Amino acid sequence: MTTKRVGVIGAGQLGRMMALAGIPLDIDFVFYDEAQQSPCSNLGTGIRPSANNALAQFIASVDVVTYESENTSLELVRKINLQKPVYPGELSLSKSQHRLTEKTEFNDLGIATAQFLRVTSKDELSYACQQLGLPIVVKTTTEGYDGKGQAVIKTVADIDAAWHALAGNELIAESFVNFSRELSVIAARDVHGNIQVYPIAENAHHEGILRVSRVPVKDLCPAKEQQAKDFISLLLNHLDHVGVLTLELFDCEDGLVANEMAPRVHNSGHWSIEGSYCSQFENHVRAICGMPLGNPQAKQAASAMINIIGKNGDRDCVLANANAHLHMYGKSERPNRKLGHINVFGDSEGEVDASLETLAAFIDECG
Amino acid sequence: MTTKRVGVIGAGQLGRMMALAGIPLDIDFVFYDEAQQSPCSNLGTGIRPSANNALAQFIASVDVVTYESENTSLELVRKINLQKPVYPGELSLSKSQHRLTEKTEFNDLGIATAQFLRVTSKDELSYACQQLGLPIVVKTTTEGYDGKGQAVIKTVADIDAAWHALAGNELIAESFVNFSRELSVIAARDVHGNIQVYPIAENAHHEGILRVSRVPVKDLCPAKEQQAKDFISLLLNHLDHVGVLTLELFDCEDGLVANEMAPRVHNSGHWSIEGSYCSQFENHVRAICGMPLGNPQAKQAASAMINIIGKNGDRDCVLANANAHLHMYGKSERPNRKLGHINVFGDSEGEVDASLETLAAFIDECG
Repeated sequence: MTTKRVGVIGAGQLGRMMALAGIPLDIDFVFYDEAQQSPCSNLGTGIRPSANNALAQFIASVDVVTYESENTSLELVRKINLQKPVYPGELSLSKSQHRLTEKTEFNDLGIATAQFLRVTSKDELSYACQQLGLPIVVKTTTEGYDGKGQAVIKTVADIDAAWHALAGNELIAESFVNFSRELSVIAARDVHGNIQVYPIAENAHHEGILRVSRVPVKDLCPAKEQQAKDFISLLLNHLDHVGVLTLELFDCEDGLVANEMAPRVHNSGHWSIEGSYCSQFENHVRAICGMPLGNPQAKQAASAMINIIGKNGDRDCVLANANAHLHMYGKSERPNRKLGHINVFGDSEGEVDASLETLAAFIDECG
Repeated sequence: MTTKRVGVIGAGQLGRMMALAGIPLDIDFVFYDEAQQSPCSNLGTGIRPSANNALAQFIASVDVVTYESENTSLELVRKINLQKPVYPGELSLSKSQHRLTEKTEFNDLGIATAQFLRVTSKDELSYACQQLGLPIVVKTTTEGYDGKGQAVIKTVADIDAAWHALAGNELIAESFVNFSRELSVIAARDVHGNIQVYPIAENAHHEGILRVSRVPVKDLCPAKEQQAKDFISLLLNHLDHVGVLTLELFDCEDGLVANEMAPRVHNSGHWSIEGSYCSQFENHVRAICGMPLGNPQAKQAASAMINIIGKNGDRDCVLANANAHLHMYGKSERPNRKLGHINVFGDSEGEVDASLETLAAFIDECG
């Protein structure tokens, strides 16, 4: 077996969990990141972009490159791609970086979204409020995550504040979607175009940050399940995507509505580390290294993932729960920072509910 | 959460899998080993014993120390123990290093063994052949593993060759045990004396090297299961052992007979990485770090572990099996070298049998 060398742009918890999944497959990791202490410090070589000749050294030291974030510099990816393959490719990255382009693309593929309008002036914002009907959500078309870079306009009185907060950026105004819950679907596509779709997750947020994901989704009708699989397969093939792709969805009466995609492993798929036969991290690594994909199906009847945010909490309370698995990211405490997560499993949803109750402190502490 | 720093004497696959299990618990690892390239190279800091001031540096850089092998220098462990705790302790290590002491200890605790005699001369060897009745096995009392450092005497004509091969060492002569199969029981004990016992494994060897382990053991009567649990609990408590301990057993008509113990995680427990709620590696790390123990029970109806020995084989054939997990050790090919293992799971023994058949090449290649 020849050792594959994977370069990761970034060195956060996603890179950490990719490495933990890839090392047993004899894959070596190189992290391209400025931080000297990071969640990936102990899992491979670090190259600091500010160092002399850093990029050339990074490119020379790897066989294939991936990235942790949809905010990765497209220019950097293009440069690397001239010498080494970068997966997911430029197309997936560029489409994910611009909310307007992304939603247009969704519609072109027949994937439902909220109604939306481009906004570049206060007048256009007022016009969007009339056209779309209040309430609306206004977001920067680029950057922004975990609830940052967006505002809600409930009445015309909110327009000034929203404009003040976001002016200077290209914006997208979106009609409010009347949904019952937030879902996400994650899938991996290999270099030959084979696709494996993970069970759909239901996600609960608090202040814009994912708090809990659960699998399977209660009472999801087969038609919607199929719709989610169709949506993500359409996207994967259209983008010629290699690696993991995530699509966030709203569950609405008439069907699923796409919110946004992420060209990467996703927080709502962390349950798969022990929950699936092959986790999203292992499948991402397999895909970009040209290996066959693994089975994404759930091993247990019911799974849940709880984010540990801001404070570490009582570790021993997690370890003492026979159905829980602790995953820390080697980060120090800071408000709203994702420090780790807990995976919980059970033979029934009730069993998972019981575990979640004993672990409620981790959910309540931050909200 | 304060990061615990675990020092490991050695840097082989056992250290590698300890680190892969411990890193998600925010544990940092330091490996005390001469090799510059090792299975642990990417999983923590390496300190080479030959380096200037190496031991003092190693001791200063960790909170607790463990070791990978029962052949670890007792003197080294004693030195370290003056400044930092070493788990499992000196007692477990010293008893495991001497087959004669070990077997005497077993008998003192009421744990059955083969009949045995100390042998230091050819005359004593001839006497042992008469006393124990042929065939017998002769082993060096110290060192030796995977079938090395031992000889079988079937007829008196074999005595010369055996003596020639092993002379110069203190030897132990053992009567042949009439067993139907080889089993092992693994358990973890925490700093408070709590014990968690893993399901018993059935082990198949080839040329003295473990080839396949399976869980559960077919048709093992509850009395023998209890006996295995009693044996290992007696040992753990007697040795005031902290961490994982393994006891190899022969399954005989009248009950179980102990072969030898290893004061460490064990090849026959590698199935537990995905097979148990909490693997032997995670429980060892939890125990030595003063954390509560996790659930050792099997998640699936049937599990198996196949060692990849000498040659890497066809990796993609493993990855394409939806019920298989590949664990490589980052080592290069060499005859009789353990390069990795494959964990296989199923809802029934038949399902595991079917997977083993598709993976038969990995078992056959070396034997």
